[in-house]
Amino acid sequence: MSRVVKLAVIPGDGIGPEVIAEAEKVLDAAVSGSDVRFESTRFSLGAGRFLETGETLTDADLEAIRSHDAILLGAVGGVPGDPRLKDANIERGLLLKLRFELDHYVNLRPSKLYPGVPGPLAAPGDIDFVVVREGTEGPYVGNGGSIRTGTPHEVANETSVNTAFGVERVVRYAFDLAERRSKKLTLVHKTNVLVHAGGIWKRLVDEVAREHPDVAVDYVHVDAATIYLVTNPDRFDVIVTDNLFGDILTDLAGAVTGGIGLAASGNINPDGAFPSMFEPVHGSAPDIAGQQKADPTAAILSVALLLDHLGLHDESRRVTTAVEDDIASRGSAPRSTAEVGDAIAARLSA
Amino acid sequence: MSRVVKLAVIPGDGIGPEVIAEAEKVLDAAVSGSDVRFESTRFSLGAGRFLETGETLTDADLEAIRSHDAILLGAVGGVPGDPRLKDANIERGLLLKLRFELDHYVNLRPSKLYPGVPGPLAAPGDIDFVVVREGTEGPYVGNGGSIRTGTPHEVANETSVNTAFGVERVVRYAFDLAERRSKKLTLVHKTNVLVHAGGIWKRLVDEVAREHPDVAVDYVHVDAATIYLVTNPDRFDVIVTDNLFGDILTDLAGAVTGGIGLAASGNINPDGAFPSMFEPVHGSAPDIAGQQKADPTAAILSVALLLDHLGLHDESRRVTTAVEDDIASRGSAPRSTAEVGDAIAARLSA
Ligand SMILES: CC(C)[C@H](C(=O)O)[C@@H](O)C(=O)O
Ligand SMILES: CC(C)[C@H](C(=O)O)[C@@H](O)C(=O)O
Repeated sequence: MSRVVKLAVIPGDGIGPEVIAEAEKVLDAAVSGSDVRFESTRFSLGAGRFLETGETLTDADLEAIRSHDAILLGAVGGVPGDPRLKDANIERGLLLKLRFELDHYVNLRPSKLYPGVPGPLAAPGDIDFVVVREGTEGPYVGNGGSIRTGTPHEVANETSVNTAFGVERVVRYAFDLAERRSKKLTLVHKTNVLVHAGGIWKRLVDEVAREHPDVAVDYVHVDAATIYLVTNPDRFDVIVTDNLFGDILTDLAGAVTGGIGLAASGNINPDGAFPSMFEPVHGSAPDIAGQQKADPTAAILSVALLLDHLGLHDESRRVTTAVEDDIASRGSAPRSTAEVGDAIAARLSA
Repeated sequence: MSRVVKLAVIPGDGIGPEVIAEAEKVLDAAVSGSDVRFESTRFSLGAGRFLETGETLTDADLEAIRSHDAILLGAVGGVPGDPRLKDANIERGLLLKLRFELDHYVNLRPSKLYPGVPGPLAAPGDIDFVVVREGTEGPYVGNGGSIRTGTPHEVANETSVNTAFGVERVVRYAFDLAERRSKKLTLVHKTNVLVHAGGIWKRLVDEVAREHPDVAVDYVHVDAATIYLVTNPDRFDVIVTDNLFGDILTDLAGAVTGGIGLAASGNINPDGAFPSMFEPVHGSAPDIAGQQKADPTAAILSVALLLDHLGLHDESRRVTTAVEDDIASRGSAPRSTAEVGDAIAARLSA
């Protein structure tokens, strides 16, 4: 009996289509010969679509995407400063809208320094942690506004909204993950200053911690966390944090583990009510688009996260191993986007 | 005719008193033989005072501090997790209260990698930039609250408040600083997500930029800024940003320039209506307090910022040079807090 997985593919803008082509190549190689088959539908979404049609994400798009089992996304966003995109907010209108509408409350971002990968730190140590970033609330909700806009008396407010419902579920996910890893969890926030938002996070981590007496829990302020990420990143194993702090920490974590060309992410709805979405952490990099210069590794590692999410653990591990082996054998000669994808896919077929 | 500067000294907790002793030593050496004299009043404030009296910062304290020309602060904060401090928030009740009440709207944090200083980056390049962090509004205002607190239906909000008045004045300060430096200014924010708070910052930077056609202005998202800080920090010269992003960036900047043992800061009220406050970026580090292990360099560089603020530019430069010379001649043998202070003071008297 074969299993058909309905995959929504959003190549997006810039280098998105190039890295997605390689990710799909690897996905096919990973399941070839098994009883799993991916049935893909491509969605044209992003700055390109907006420029053509004025649409960002229509109800019909969303409806169609919802009927899939999972989503693979490349990168979205136009050329910075493009005047035609002045009033488009592709990030909010497309990427964040997908995360919010599909209730992707876990934004899972593993950070691992693979042997042989050059990074900016002189003595990085053994970096291997996962950031569990909340994905559906906090400062990202868009709650706010301004009065006397554009005048010397303008007041612009932006409200971080944190609910017990929203915080508890992602904290529970993080503890479950910590149980399966090194039983160590760090809450990152700024509780000494953001007393209201910080208070609910602290309380719920303390509460859920009581159900996990074997997990060692600590707390680090977000400013101090950035210091640790460059001085002793190996102190972290599972980090749980809010949407904004998670955004900041994972870009920095990507940089210290060799660049966001390697950083994968999953936007996960653990309840399975909606399709989860897998995407590289990097952006659309329009400056190098179409030149086969982009590193597809982050997109390919996102495929590993996708396979894992679908319960295809062996396939996921094989992709990760193929990537690790490829990385370990990388020389200094640059390879094209397709060459990297081909090399990794070849390891899977071997 | 001699000039008397009334200085409020807040040694604080942990390593605060030790580093302040060295800072005062250097301050005295810097002005000895000149017509400037510092008249210091010590204020016992911090976790220690709270534990003794239950007070954090009384109206009388504030009134007394206000009558001074400037403030020198060591570090405040008790032992993390001390149950007796559970309901004290020394950070908000003391440090932030001083910044807000004394209208320290410019939080000035220079980042410079001095020759010879070991840092975490393999190839740091030539790091020399200044973060102009807004100090009196944004997410730091404490505006927020929660309903159904402690229940599964809790909602906790935290509002970032940004006014044209507050943003414009710090942006103007940053542009003036950029004019005196390399004529390059970077706004760091997260305008693609925090559209309300980001909007007012973007607008006012654009507006003030028009009055400074010779200053090159760019914009970087806060997440990307953390990447640049570890991959090419030399791209920055003057960064202007909000209170929270400035907090995060300056800790990271401190780390990449050799640790927050070297990072100085000024909480400045440029209008001169209230005394400005100078303090190392580091905390009270109770774990090493009283052991003469703390590096007083950040406190001493804060003295250089203090002297500069008071118009004592030559004295300021002499302190900075003495610190630079001391750093360049540092061996690997550890020195006590007092030995570092003595060595720097000796260079000033030589
Ligand atoms: C593009 C932007 C909205 C997004 C975010 O802030 O979440 C990105 O930085 C990321 O981390 O996926
Ligand atoms: C102690 C804390 C309130 C403070 C801040 O967040 O501003 C500190 O981190 C700093 O940067 O001076």
